[in-house]
Amino acid sequence: MTTHDLSPAATTAPGDAPAATPATDVHERLAASRAPLPASTKTHEHGVLHPRLRVPLREIALTNGERIAVYDTSGPYTDPAAATDVRRGLPAPRAEWIEARGDTEPYTGRPIQLFDDGLREAGQQQALRAHSVKLTRQPRRARGGANVTQMHYARRGIVTAEMEYVAIRENGRRAWMHEYLADSEREQRLRGQGLGASIPGIITPEFVRDEVARGRAIIPANINHPELEPMAIGRNFLVKVNANIGNSAVSSGIEEEVEKLVWATRWGADTVMDLSTGRNIHTTRDWILRNSPVPIGTVPIYQALEKVGGVAEELSWALFRDTLIEQAEQGVDYFTIHAGVRLPFVPMTVKRRTGIVSRGGSILAKWCIAHHRENFLYTHFEEICEIMKAYDVSFSLGDGLRPGSLADANDEAQFAELRTLGELTKVAWKHDVQTMIEGPGHVPMHMIQANMTEQLKHCDEAPFYTLGPLTTDIAPGYDHITSGIGAAMIGWFGCAMLCYVTPKEHLGLPDRDDVKQGLMAYKIAAHAADIAKGHPAARARDDALSKARFEFRWEDQFNLGLDPETAREFHDETLPKDSAKVAHFCSMCGPKFCSMKITQDVREYSAALAENGEQRVDSDAGEPSEADARAPARDLDAEAALTGMREKSAEFRAGGGELYIPIRQA
Amino acid sequence: MTTHDLSPAATTAPGDAPAATPATDVHERLAASRAPLPASTKTHEHGVLHPRLRVPLREIALTNGERIAVYDTSGPYTDPAAATDVRRGLPAPRAEWIEARGDTEPYTGRPIQLFDDGLREAGQQQALRAHSVKLTRQPRRARGGANVTQMHYARRGIVTAEMEYVAIRENGRRAWMHEYLADSEREQRLRGQGLGASIPGIITPEFVRDEVARGRAIIPANINHPELEPMAIGRNFLVKVNANIGNSAVSSGIEEEVEKLVWATRWGADTVMDLSTGRNIHTTRDWILRNSPVPIGTVPIYQALEKVGGVAEELSWALFRDTLIEQAEQGVDYFTIHAGVRLPFVPMTVKRRTGIVSRGGSILAKWCIAHHRENFLYTHFEEICEIMKAYDVSFSLGDGLRPGSLADANDEAQFAELRTLGELTKVAWKHDVQTMIEGPGHVPMHMIQANMTEQLKHCDEAPFYTLGPLTTDIAPGYDHITSGIGAAMIGWFGCAMLCYVTPKEHLGLPDRDDVKQGLMAYKIAAHAADIAKGHPAARARDDALSKARFEFRWEDQFNLGLDPETAREFHDETLPKDSAKVAHFCSMCGPKFCSMKITQDVREYSAALAENGEQRVDSDAGEPSEADARAPARDLDAEAALTGMREKSAEFRAGGGELYIPIRQA
Repeated sequence: MTTHDLSPAATTAPGDAPAATPATDVHERLAASRAPLPASTKTHEHGVLHPRLRVPLREIALTNGERIAVYDTSGPYTDPAAATDVRRGLPAPRAEWIEARGDTEPYTGRPIQLFDDGLREAGQQQALRAHSVKLTRQPRRARGGANVTQMHYARRGIVTAEMEYVAIRENGRRAWMHEYLADSEREQRLRGQGLGASIPGIITPEFVRDEVARGRAIIPANINHPELEPMAIGRNFLVKVNANIGNSAVSSGIEEEVEKLVWATRWGADTVMDLSTGRNIHTTRDWILRNSPVPIGTVPIYQALEKVGGVAEELSWALFRDTLIEQAEQGVDYFTIHAGVRLPFVPMTVKRRTGIVSRGGSILAKWCIAHHRENFLYTHFEEICEIMKAYDVSFSLGDGLRPGSLADANDEAQFAELRTLGELTKVAWKHDVQTMIEGPGHVPMHMIQANMTEQLKHCDEAPFYTLGPLTTDIAPGYDHITSGIGAAMIGWFGCAMLCYVTPKEHLGLPDRDDVKQGLMAYKIAAHAADIAKGHPAARARDDALSKARFEFRWEDQFNLGLDPETAREFHDETLPKDSAKVAHFCSMCGPKFCSMKITQDVREYSAALAENGEQRVDSDAGEPSEADARAPARDLDAEAALTGMREKSAEFRAGGGELYIPIRQA
Repeated sequence: MTTHDLSPAATTAPGDAPAATPATDVHERLAASRAPLPASTKTHEHGVLHPRLRVPLREIALTNGERIAVYDTSGPYTDPAAATDVRRGLPAPRAEWIEARGDTEPYTGRPIQLFDDGLREAGQQQALRAHSVKLTRQPRRARGGANVTQMHYARRGIVTAEMEYVAIRENGRRAWMHEYLADSEREQRLRGQGLGASIPGIITPEFVRDEVARGRAIIPANINHPELEPMAIGRNFLVKVNANIGNSAVSSGIEEEVEKLVWATRWGADTVMDLSTGRNIHTTRDWILRNSPVPIGTVPIYQALEKVGGVAEELSWALFRDTLIEQAEQGVDYFTIHAGVRLPFVPMTVKRRTGIVSRGGSILAKWCIAHHRENFLYTHFEEICEIMKAYDVSFSLGDGLRPGSLADANDEAQFAELRTLGELTKVAWKHDVQTMIEGPGHVPMHMIQANMTEQLKHCDEAPFYTLGPLTTDIAPGYDHITSGIGAAMIGWFGCAMLCYVTPKEHLGLPDRDDVKQGLMAYKIAAHAADIAKGHPAARARDDALSKARFEFRWEDQFNLGLDPETAREFHDETLPKDSAKVAHFCSMCGPKFCSMKITQDVREYSAALAENGEQRVDSDAGEPSEADARAPARDLDAEAALTGMREKSAEFRAGGGELYIPIRQA
């Protein structure tokens, strides 16, 4: 069923990439990206409804013997037991689930043409070279008119393997979390504000099914992407993060894009969008899909535009339709479709500071005005639905009219498009096609919530998927931060997936380090949002890390963090010695002056008080009256409230009273 | 009046700093820090009430001839016309204002002792060396019982030079902003949400006086810091950013700290806290103050602890009082005083995940329990006020019980202390002593607003000054981002100053690059907050940059940003050629595929429509009925609404219809 046809030419640089990387370097870097993270091992949970499911978790071994399991997006790459080879593609665990459902069939598929890779003249050397770089798989499609979407199954009451997989993955391993989340005062105090979210204490497969059936979550999972480890996008699940990769006419090549994919999933990308333009985009996509454990999204209009030589006016429904089928057969899990860029909305952008900044949006706007016709994606929307449901490609309804600057935020054009996306969501749902909605962009903090409110209202809680938003325009070079702020906020407000922004946004193409920096900012945003909205499994990791920090378990502090290597490097810069990794102080204050150490003394003293049945000091008892507050030198009230502590004080001093008594081994 | 006593020994490395930097390197780096930012010149505005005021602005020259003036914290260092020399200190523009008020007098001052620099044995070589590194100024104090605080003047109706300076600085140069903020639809749509702030359209000197009189703003301005360029901290002013510097027993030396100061103000630090511990802290502080154009804050308990050899129990009021006078004479502008760490609150920290993490808080908690007495800062608070008002040192009431982890956020201990700080604020105000309140720390997003609400309520709108807060604990190495999110939010909610966090937080001592990274994150947070709360002068810079971006004025886009050098570097990485700096495309999409370019075509087309009196297309007219929405293939309605556009469409195609027509020169 799978065709691996990889000639040696595969390792030559593709067409016009100016800075092509020798394949050996790529393979070396890939190998480096495959080492497990420090102190980490890959483990798996198994299904109940579908016992053969192997749902991955990353288990972090702490120095105190605890084992903390965290969500793992990195796929088989970080599993030394898995023999991955990007030249052959990943194993295909979903293949048997799909086949077992009996509603799909393999078929010959659309013949691959030179122009799929942006090549028009068969004589080109480049064309031949590119064409010989193959990593293809025979496509499947729904058997005669069947609907094979997860939403269709969900609405018929079927809990698919994908749904159970997602449920297990979202729950994580709760056993280790219990210790951290057991304190009832703390849990009450820190209880999240769901703002309309309805997250259950335990995610069951049935809950996943119900959310998918209602359209409140999607599981992007093309039947032609059997390598996928399924995940869910929805406001009642963990907030997800997307990383964009993709070559362009200016730089980058196939191998580099696969390397970025592996790298992005290592650092937590839940989905990856391949935004390639220029040459060899079909072939690049084959490589990416066959090597991707996460859902892959694309913007098919980019490839369609390449096929017409970059002239937007020459786009046609027939050509676009053919491109959708091409990509659906390859296994793309979600398509960005800018069907909301309607002709009447285009003039609304005239007075904008930055017009139309979405690539897809501007292409379609140009097509609309050149032909003086309604957007063909809008007029053919139901035909697109027919394709989507034959492969289970999810819609990501594109916000082609999103603001490109704060000045254009929440304007008439943006919200007119959003309302249209709401209408189209209902059309897609009529066909049981999974749908999410893309959102902005550039929005000042105080205008973010309105975006979420409008989206929930017009799109009936279909998952929202936003880029940022950037909360200021004045920091080119730091837009992972300007947008990380907005992303965290909108994630809390109900956004289901955050499209990352790298430091290179607006300036250049992200390299490997930029991809990591973008992901770090967005994993932070997503996690902060999970805590704020009250996801029951979110905060345990913060507590585990804080406990390690307080107990001077430096190694554990590093390893529980999002980026253990950087944390360790930073510590090494000031205190390089290994002994400092177990020291009861840190470099900020030095050995004589550690607040963490002092507070442990305080804790022991106070705990001793409590254990010995001393009356606990109440804050009210110790507080001065208003008259006292104006003359705080009188501390007699406090003194009075604290009789009995004097003795303990003496004990404390007798028992050491020093900064350097050994800490308790917890 | 000023004593410059700098022996050659000043350039030798101080006492026990392990990685002392040769002075020549420092001077080279300082020189590099003094070049004006790209395309920037220093200009000055003058006063009306006080005509000799010279209030600095940085003017950025754009390629289209515009000149954009922005707030400038960098002091004389970035002014090629100013001959700065860190070995002599800065000029002292405030000296004449202070003298003119006639209520202060120079005096001999407290004799400097070896132990001020943490040295106990006079025989030490180190001691002698350190003691020869002097950069001192004869102190002044209030004449016989006078009160010389800005608050005292304000309450008597006096608009000081400092107040007018602040007003001019806060307004900025409005002339250039008008073009950017003239569109009434846009200004209405983007209008900020003040959440209780009352920011006038124009900041007058009288408004500043009134805010200071009410205690809602402070102007930290010790009479012994005449080098200062005054600034205000208050919810109705621009959100400010503080950078912490300071050596510690583990690393760093005097010259490095001065270099960090210059570097920090270059990148936008509005105030700087010197958190030095260990040896030579008195001398380091002299150097910092004499070279600082921004207010300097300290935590005097750190130095007091050094004087008692690090043994918290040996601290006493007499020793602490002496330290306050020592630092007040040097010119420290605000003191962090942990007077709210009351004995009865200490046991409230027992069940915390991370106890007491504030250094000052833990020192005082230890003192309290060791002596079984109320915190001496609390009992002697009015005596501290007497010192503060003789020099105009502002209070920064420290949050010694702030949470050190999400788990401890908003707990009993934290809020008990906050209420005490509210009581102490009223005591300070009774003495007309300027006061701000420190806040946390580590707080999940959904619990941030409660911090602000409680602070405003209990502290009667005295300015809030928070560290972050960090919104998750799981990202050591990236806490400038975890906390930048919280900082932006609390800034919007009403926080007046944000204490930066660098990427090294929890891990090591920040180096020069860390200082910059921390400042970038926090300038972003502060600016995003200014926009959200509706500061009338905030958004113009975003608009200017967005306009430059849309018009492919790359140089202007770089130079209008917070960090022009990094933006340019990032652009160069992908497109190094100079011609790319004027290219009508960028590296993300390449020359054939630029949404910005396409949208300009769209704009011209639509604008032409409007100019020719065509009926403007209304979104409602073009929207399908609900029935249509379910069959979007029927675009007849939209077609009907758009009659007349067909002709324009033909015109557009005849007139080019290409991606590559030259852009209009705006």
